[in-house]
Amino acid sequence: MKGLPLSKVYQLLEPGPVLLLTTSHQDRVNVMTMSWHMMVDFEPPLIACIVSNRDHSFVALRTMKECVLAIPAVELEEKFVAIGNCSGRDVDKFSAFHLTPKMAEHVSAPLVAECFANIECRVIDTRLVNRYGLFVLEGLKAWIDPKQKNPKTIHHTGFGKFVVDGETIEFASNMP
Amino acid sequence: MKGLPLSKVYQLLEPGPVLLLTTSHQDRVNVMTMSWHMMVDFEPPLIACIVSNRDHSFVALRTMKECVLAIPAVELEEKFVAIGNCSGRDVDKFSAFHLTPKMAEHVSAPLVAECFANIECRVIDTRLVNRYGLFVLEGLKAWIDPKQKNPKTIHHTGFGKFVVDGETIEFASNMP
Repeated sequence: MKGLPLSKVYQLLEPGPVLLLTTSHQDRVNVMTMSWHMMVDFEPPLIACIVSNRDHSFVALRTMKECVLAIPAVELEEKFVAIGNCSGRDVDKFSAFHLTPKMAEHVSAPLVAECFANIECRVIDTRLVNRYGLFVLEGLKAWIDPKQKNPKTIHHTGFGKFVVDGETIEFASNMP
Repeated sequence: MKGLPLSKVYQLLEPGPVLLLTTSHQDRVNVMTMSWHMMVDFEPPLIACIVSNRDHSFVALRTMKECVLAIPAVELEEKFVAIGNCSGRDVDKFSAFHLTPKMAEHVSAPLVAECFANIECRVIDTRLVNRYGLFVLEGLKAWIDPKQKNPKTIHHTGFGKFVVDGETIEFASNMP
């Protein structure tokens, strides 16, 4: 994996891809599937996401204030669907779904080696956590896997349905 | 346009499509292009979005506490790119880009007749507005245009580049 300038994180997250969120807490790592996230600012990259208090990752994220956002390409579809359909309460998901945790640089949560991008994050604002489970994260370090060329991401549209990236179109723009 | 159950709003917004956000303030309507939004809760649908204090829509949204989120299909690509590249300070965008404002039911901001879906929203939480421009909205009424069949949405990936929806894949799921 290769470092990516933090100023490019928004290009990864803005289109709304399905993500994996990893945490580490009390000597256990966990991973959940997540679609409810958005960019908040460009640089440093700030990202908001929803982790409900019904999610097993909630306590780990609120306590440790660290996570990794990992972006799977469409080839991992069966894994991230299965990850989203069970809970870390019952399952060691890294082991059950044959994902490879890799040591991150700034956080205790692991990178996911199979994902084409990983973003190490710390929680910087918890004011909306109690009411909505809304965490504001700051990206500390971003990684991409140069071996995965032109990865296609996936966008959840509800109840097991996903749309895969199609063609790319391009316009002149003076805006980021 | 036809009403859509509010419980289905997340199926429209969760995949991260490019949106138009309309406002009405001091007898002027305005529209901006926006990609930084996410679902916060299912029902009533709560939605977070970022409107920067550099955006002309910021004052209208903060003052009126109302907006419409309109979802354009890919056919409107030239319009939403142009809308995103100018400011309501200088341009009457509905007129300049030949968009048709339609009266909403619950808010003063207009629906966009050309969009395949429109969601009337009120601002319910402004705690993160000063720091991040992060507004929490509640969807009050959702509309779809039954004449637009299988609309493809568009996902911004930075500097005028967009990915269009590709194929749909489906898995068994017991989760929404």
